[in-house]
Amino acid sequence: MARVYDRYKSKMQKVADINHAIAVLSWDKEVNLPKDSAPHRSQQVATLAGMSHNEFVSKDFGALLNRLANMKSLSAAEKKNISVTLDAYQKATKFSEAFIIRKSTIESNAYHAWLKAREANDYGVFKDALKELVDLKREEAKKLKATEHPYDALLDIYEPGLTVAQLDPIFGGIKISLKKLIKKINKSKQVKNNFLRKRYSWNKQWEFGLDILENMGYDFNRGRQDISAHPFTTSFSPTDVRVTTRVDENDFAYMLWSTIHEGGHALYEQGLSSEEYGLPTGSYISLSIHESQSRLWENHVGRSKEYWSFWYPSLQAEFPKNLNNVSLNKFYAGINRIAPNLIRTEADELHYHFHVLIRYEIEKGLIEGSIDTDNLSEVWNEKYKEYLGISAKDDNTGVLQDVHWGHGSFGYFPTYSLGSFYAAQFYAQAEKDIPKLNKKIAKGNTTPLLNWLRENIHQHGRRYEADELCNNITGESLNVEHFLNYANTKFKSIYKK
Amino acid sequence: MARVYDRYKSKMQKVADINHAIAVLSWDKEVNLPKDSAPHRSQQVATLAGMSHNEFVSKDFGALLNRLANMKSLSAAEKKNISVTLDAYQKATKFSEAFIIRKSTIESNAYHAWLKAREANDYGVFKDALKELVDLKREEAKKLKATEHPYDALLDIYEPGLTVAQLDPIFGGIKISLKKLIKKINKSKQVKNNFLRKRYSWNKQWEFGLDILENMGYDFNRGRQDISAHPFTTSFSPTDVRVTTRVDENDFAYMLWSTIHEGGHALYEQGLSSEEYGLPTGSYISLSIHESQSRLWENHVGRSKEYWSFWYPSLQAEFPKNLNNVSLNKFYAGINRIAPNLIRTEADELHYHFHVLIRYEIEKGLIEGSIDTDNLSEVWNEKYKEYLGISAKDDNTGVLQDVHWGHGSFGYFPTYSLGSFYAAQFYAQAEKDIPKLNKKIAKGNTTPLLNWLRENIHQHGRRYEADELCNNITGESLNVEHFLNYANTKFKSIYKK
Repeated sequence: MARVYDRYKSKMQKVADINHAIAVLSWDKEVNLPKDSAPHRSQQVATLAGMSHNEFVSKDFGALLNRLANMKSLSAAEKKNISVTLDAYQKATKFSEAFIIRKSTIESNAYHAWLKAREANDYGVFKDALKELVDLKREEAKKLKATEHPYDALLDIYEPGLTVAQLDPIFGGIKISLKKLIKKINKSKQVKNNFLRKRYSWNKQWEFGLDILENMGYDFNRGRQDISAHPFTTSFSPTDVRVTTRVDENDFAYMLWSTIHEGGHALYEQGLSSEEYGLPTGSYISLSIHESQSRLWENHVGRSKEYWSFWYPSLQAEFPKNLNNVSLNKFYAGINRIAPNLIRTEADELHYHFHVLIRYEIEKGLIEGSIDTDNLSEVWNEKYKEYLGISAKDDNTGVLQDVHWGHGSFGYFPTYSLGSFYAAQFYAQAEKDIPKLNKKIAKGNTTPLLNWLRENIHQHGRRYEADELCNNITGESLNVEHFLNYANTKFKSIYKK
Repeated sequence: MARVYDRYKSKMQKVADINHAIAVLSWDKEVNLPKDSAPHRSQQVATLAGMSHNEFVSKDFGALLNRLANMKSLSAAEKKNISVTLDAYQKATKFSEAFIIRKSTIESNAYHAWLKAREANDYGVFKDALKELVDLKREEAKKLKATEHPYDALLDIYEPGLTVAQLDPIFGGIKISLKKLIKKINKSKQVKNNFLRKRYSWNKQWEFGLDILENMGYDFNRGRQDISAHPFTTSFSPTDVRVTTRVDENDFAYMLWSTIHEGGHALYEQGLSSEEYGLPTGSYISLSIHESQSRLWENHVGRSKEYWSFWYPSLQAEFPKNLNNVSLNKFYAGINRIAPNLIRTEADELHYHFHVLIRYEIEKGLIEGSIDTDNLSEVWNEKYKEYLGISAKDDNTGVLQDVHWGHGSFGYFPTYSLGSFYAAQFYAQAEKDIPKLNKKIAKGNTTPLLNWLRENIHQHGRRYEADELCNNITGESLNVEHFLNYANTKFKSIYKK
């Protein structure tokens, strides 16, 4: 019996090896690639993508999976692995190797068109490649046959089981509650954060970011940090989980919360089981759970008063000119300033969800065909005016700002909001479970929190689905009230005047 | 007809894509790998190596190759591609995928054992892994069935057709001639090079190295330079050819000639045809021809008086404290100082070949079974005493110094000497073909030389074998007299007193 399961395991690990080779090539593309080598690199990635697909969808493997699915002697974790893999197998067999290679090539082209469009600050340069990509995504969704909305099929890729029918009411409710809270805040005296925009030396920022990561528990023997235009985390195995960041000498916030955010992602990946490499039980659950880890560290830890009551003296010592006249209270208020802005990755914790909502509405429209790529720049600007009351000055601060569409990631954005909501729910539970958590954080000790996350979330891999995990930990399904409570309490205290 | 050949081409490019993915993973291993991730990375490389092999040895491909080998309508270049590939196919089919994966794994293990042995400065730590590797290499040689000496099968991997029967007389002759020349030199007054061992700032060295590479014609839009413990060049396509270097603040030579050397390799790879990607006509001929390019730039250009008559003023301006009291003549003599030393990569142009000879004799012995891995450290030291009159202080400056055996590269070293001899022969021809070549170099203009190399060597890929190319360019086969003439003239002039 064990031997049949081992055949499954070694096949999965072979596929994982290929997929992680693709991940190395992609990491290298973002961090190191020489200017003129994009076409060859795209071809290499496409070849590997095709091979990985072929390896996975082989008939022998399908037969093996079906045989294992009917075996009663497997452990619960093994059964879970088989059922997740069988589902993935059934979806993968809807696509030919040629489709996968075409998809990889179209995505690479779109990415490089997006880079060129960014250089020209002109959506027109990206438009055709995006249209080709949207058509491909619609074709992909069609093959995957969602029961209700075609966009459901794409949501499911990143968040298994997620549907438009679930998301619409969540965003509908959050929209009203956040508008109400923001309205209240707008009546208070605005807090200042101009001290973040002084000159912060590149090297000192870089060193400070490394200290922060190390203190979080990020293991540099099993990872490294580099610079890329768009910060990201990638994993080639639990022993090689890499983060990237960015540094702006005139904006300390640009580096810092991005570093903590990616650090949160990386701790999840470093906390997965090395023995379960390549299997669902050795993999993250879904992107919203992944994002719950990054947002938890970024916001609940990294923007808390306790955290900075520990770190702020070191920060002041590093940058005395910029910060010696700024009290901890003012610093804390400033880093939590609520104000609409154009850039999602720099948005405050409340407006952030309007940024996501806009992308959700646009993607839904593109996939169902009610929005066209032709005038996307205008659609974008109208939505920003409607939801945030501001308009992009140009395409780079507007429709071109995120890399996701250039990567072919449609259905991904909603997990950013869900992740924030899960983060709030998990953190509320951690505060109950860990005695004096906030006091510990105020002493620079986040180890109990990391241990709690390791024990409750990381170590299980995808042993449970998102909803199951949430119930296991908190005793209920995702409930946005936790996020709203957190936000109301925090921001009413900051904006009390 | 064209369509059959196109099927061949696309198969070859698929295999090349996988092999280049392996090259990216290997580059990343040397440049970036986190400390604890070696085992997973080794597994990923082994999986890809197995897949590449399987893809290449498929029966369909064999049939296609045989069909193409009998087609009369192919161009000469196409015929050459088919015959080279058929030969490689016949050799590859002697190995199973399991053997290839085992080989990749044993090589990775040996590499990491070598790293650990280096850390401990103890050959004993490497010994068992090396024994396993030597056994594997003997098995590999046996499967490849060399007609005369089993080592011939391994030489052939790096230098098609090269045999012990060819090498023995070459090394035998060169040994006598070099000993004679060195004896003469030893009677002259020794030149000084202590100015190279002053403090040279890391950043300035790095910048100077980049200037040198750029001036050589290395295209940074199609490559990049990084730091690694052991400098190397790798290519993922002609549009992404990367070099690495090393910097020692107390030894300027450590960085500089290594940078020029790798630059020479890289120019060859950047000069290959992008259209012939994955085919023999888009690939280098052999390692000795590759090495001819690096040694030509390193020694014939990079250690020439003309080259430094252009560069030396800039170097003095960068490091005035170290060099303002050193004349160009003294600098030139110093960088060409002849003296035995323990480290191959830092050896002078004459003693260098004794370093290679020692490795050649040891490898031959290991493969035929007359030398054992057990007491290799002693064998090493005896040979150094015999050929260079010096003994290693420890294993790191002795038997552990080169990474090659840790990589499983047996049969590789002899190409270093052959490369130097080819370099001398090619350079002598270039001096005839290019009007006032040395005057141009003295003006900092190496473009005519690069163009000559591009036209005569790089652009052809493996359209010709090494001997054929050498005859095409110089009208004769490899003739070590060119090297000996060059060496006698140069060093008698430097050591005239």
